[in-house]
Amino acid sequence: MDLNADLGESFGAWTLGDDAALLRVVTSANVACGFHAGDATVMRATVRLAAARGVAIGAHPGYRDLAGFGRRELAATPHEIADEVIYQLGALQAVCTAEGTRVRYVKPHGALYNRAAADAATARAIAESVARVDPSLVLLALAGSALIEAGRAVGLQVAAEAFADRGYLADGRLAPRGMAGALLTDPAAVASRAFALATDGRIDSLDGTPLTILPDSICIHGDTPGATRLAAAVRDRLAGSGITLTPFAA
Amino acid sequence: MDLNADLGESFGAWTLGDDAALLRVVTSANVACGFHAGDATVMRATVRLAAARGVAIGAHPGYRDLAGFGRRELAATPHEIADEVIYQLGALQAVCTAEGTRVRYVKPHGALYNRAAADAATARAIAESVARVDPSLVLLALAGSALIEAGRAVGLQVAAEAFADRGYLADGRLAPRGMAGALLTDPAAVASRAFALATDGRIDSLDGTPLTILPDSICIHGDTPGATRLAAAVRDRLAGSGITLTPFAA
Amino acid sequence: MDLNADLGESFGAWTLGDDAALLRVVTSANVACGFHAGDATVMRATVRLAAARGVAIGAHPGYRDLAGFGRRELAATPHEIADEVIYQLGALQAVCTAEGTRVRYVKPHGALYNRAAADAATARAIAESVARVDPSLVLLALAGSALIEAGRAVGLQVAAEAFADRGYLADGRLAPRGMAGALLTDPAAVASRAFALATDGRIDSLDGTPLTILPDSICIHGDTPGATRLAAAVRDRLAGSGITLTPFAA
Amino acid sequence: MDLNADLGESFGAWTLGDDAALLRVVTSANVACGFHAGDATVMRATVRLAAARGVAIGAHPGYRDLAGFGRRELAATPHEIADEVIYQLGALQAVCTAEGTRVRYVKPHGALYNRAAADAATARAIAESVARVDPSLVLLALAGSALIEAGRAVGLQVAAEAFADRGYLADGRLAPRGMAGALLTDPAAVASRAFALATDGRIDSLDGTPLTILPDSICIHGDTPGATRLAAAVRDRLAGSGITLTPFAA
Repeated sequence: MDLNADLGESFGAWTLGDDAALLRVVTSANVACGFHAGDATVMRATVRLAAARGVAIGAHPGYRDLAGFGRRELAATPHEIADEVIYQLGALQAVCTAEGTRVRYVKPHGALYNRAAADAATARAIAESVARVDPSLVLLALAGSALIEAGRAVGLQVAAEAFADRGYLADGRLAPRGMAGALLTDPAAVASRAFALATDGRIDSLDGTPLTILPDSICIHGDTPGATRLAAAVRDRLAGSGITLTPFAA
Repeated sequence: MDLNADLGESFGAWTLGDDAALLRVVTSANVACGFHAGDATVMRATVRLAAARGVAIGAHPGYRDLAGFGRRELAATPHEIADEVIYQLGALQAVCTAEGTRVRYVKPHGALYNRAAADAATARAIAESVARVDPSLVLLALAGSALIEAGRAVGLQVAAEAFADRGYLADGRLAPRGMAGALLTDPAAVASRAFALATDGRIDSLDGTPLTILPDSICIHGDTPGATRLAAAVRDRLAGSGITLTPFAA
Repeated sequence: MDLNADLGESFGAWTLGDDAALLRVVTSANVACGFHAGDATVMRATVRLAAARGVAIGAHPGYRDLAGFGRRELAATPHEIADEVIYQLGALQAVCTAEGTRVRYVKPHGALYNRAAADAATARAIAESVARVDPSLVLLALAGSALIEAGRAVGLQVAAEAFADRGYLADGRLAPRGMAGALLTDPAAVASRAFALATDGRIDSLDGTPLTILPDSICIHGDTPGATRLAAAVRDRLAGSGITLTPFAA
Repeated sequence: MDLNADLGESFGAWTLGDDAALLRVVTSANVACGFHAGDATVMRATVRLAAARGVAIGAHPGYRDLAGFGRRELAATPHEIADEVIYQLGALQAVCTAEGTRVRYVKPHGALYNRAAADAATARAIAESVARVDPSLVLLALAGSALIEAGRAVGLQVAAEAFADRGYLADGRLAPRGMAGALLTDPAAVASRAFALATDGRIDSLDGTPLTILPDSICIHGDTPGATRLAAAVRDRLAGSGITLTPFAA
């Protein structure tokens, strides 16, 4: 099983998250590319640290909305999204090249992630862009989402992810932030959820509907309160159960 | 001889320069990379057009100063400059890859160009960054500048440029914008200057001092009033004199 | 009757629209406040020119989306919108004070204008913000829109506007840009439409439904192709018919 | 004596400093205005909190350089600086008006502060801009600086500040960040320095030269490590010595 987290979300004078601690836990790092978070210097430091820890590096492109951290839906056209995914991906590729490593996968961020999960045109724009830049890249997307389908359709390798620290709706979508139960913060509960996802995939939605989700990667949010403890709890539980933690994209 | 111009300087709703016209004239296009001008969509359209015309594509990284068009000196550290050159270069590389072409060279923009021409630490930061990302890239820099030296020192191929539409000081540096004679706007004068630069390299500085400058490329500014006519006058003069116009970076 | 247009939409090195020409035609100037267009220097120059021409100055706040020119819907919360309207309005007020004049009215821009026309919570957030900053300001909004209602509800003076260069839907809303007929570009047609709006208010929607719209102000877009000629055609037609052109906010 | 600190330096998803704690200590709050830090929502929350605590509110305009936190010198012209000070000041004024309070003073930030302390043209541009917007505003500037002079020359009330947590050069200027001794971090040392500044003004420069500085306000940096403890130590020392802490601008 793979554990992924959003990293490199600091910007200029502002620090966000404890990247050094998270990089001791996760196997894949979704690195912000400067549009919703991160800057060239933060990206380079994050890449260097991830490479030193043997953590796989993924591009984490988002909407051009620094003030909103890429969490606000923005009516960019699929054409604009394609161009901006290419731009952000390329920026991180060069940073990786300069640090002697490379980008392994792409996972959209925030509102773009949600839109790409549900909207076929957006999903296709992203998948085609990634394939044009480097067809060996893996597309990391919500299990069962439009982006998984779009990735497959253009011939990309895809990886499905699930969330150990987020509540699910009965239809398998993530509960929107703000809904009661949308964020799990108890380390034991998050670790149990991760174990279920890493084994038989059986979890309950917020209203009790049984779901089966068998992901290739489990996401931990770096900016959740206590993110590092959650990640450590997940890692300890999985490793303690004999589950090997290794990047999905090698 | 090569003719280069700054292109792709539009941004969002704002158009700047007549790229389509200039691309019928120049052999190398310095494409803005989003920090001082350009955005992902403008970059992609510019790359597509340049590739279709057989014009060589160069990255044109600048300071992170959209409001100032990268023309204002900014006390970024060499470390920050290195990171931002890598970021911008990578963004354009991916755009080129997506369009089936590639970046051939790098030329810094505006205030960063001037600083890199004079300051060894800045020049080294840029040269090393380019070499780390792709050692086959050519560094296009002011003839006789610190950046030419720094490029050679890190093993990059370098190309020296001169300006057909700018006045020179007696020491070979460009006359600062704002000084009388800093900008040549008469097409015949610009064409004559270009012819001199493309043949024996003999030109006069603003105070009459004879200079010899033998460039690999002649720059035409895309945002000079009448830029397109100037470029056409230069091209006609050189082509009419039997001088082959071809990219310095093939 | 009042004629208003969006002005001050240049940014840094980029020029947009012919403000000097439009200011000879309109009686009210919607001045961009730096979030979707305009910068502090452009705002000041625009204010100075408008004041010199006796044109009433309005704040034209938009979404924080320079790359999208404020034309893309952005899921900012009403709370964020309130704060950003206050910020932009205040910035223009100080520019006006520094130039010996003052802001008379507020009109939201682009996607924010459309959202405020239809969504009561957004409209209330804007109206309350304007009233908190200066209850003597007039709110300029689409005739019949939620923003007109919200302005009245908080005790602001409101002014209803109609568009001489835009097509209408049968329900009185603007036809979305991109729909056939959404933009009128023939000067004679635009002038006739303006005359109808300034007299009995009878116009036809795109599908032929008769509408009656009696605005306090007619909007001409500064960035429509041929905007200046359209504005002049409107002014000539109205002035030639003996209709006095004067700011709605004095 | 007055104690001032930089506040409202968070931005979007990024938090910086402990404003709530600092507002229990200082008597004047320099509120970032969105160019180098802060956004409309952060500004409003900061203003509300400061007003509730009876802390005087000052505008803290900086260079348009979010990525560099306004700490990097930028070759903006005095004309551009004037326009941007007016813009930022107005934005904060409107936020204050919306919250039932008002701006009392202006203090430039970071690299702009340093430039205005040394360069007469910059100082004059800022002083004139403040006076044009509201001549009742106080200008808070480095004791003995060009900005103090410029403020007096245009008829503004001025307040001189000194730093309890910064080392001084023998000529009375601040030691540049990065120089050994440039930042004092020991609470007892900072408190002693503050007591000296609040009484006879006798302090030593980094090389031991005795200086006499009699400020109207003492600055504590909100982003220094342990800023809150430093501020509390200063307040306790001054209040414990019977020195009344009260805003310089009432």
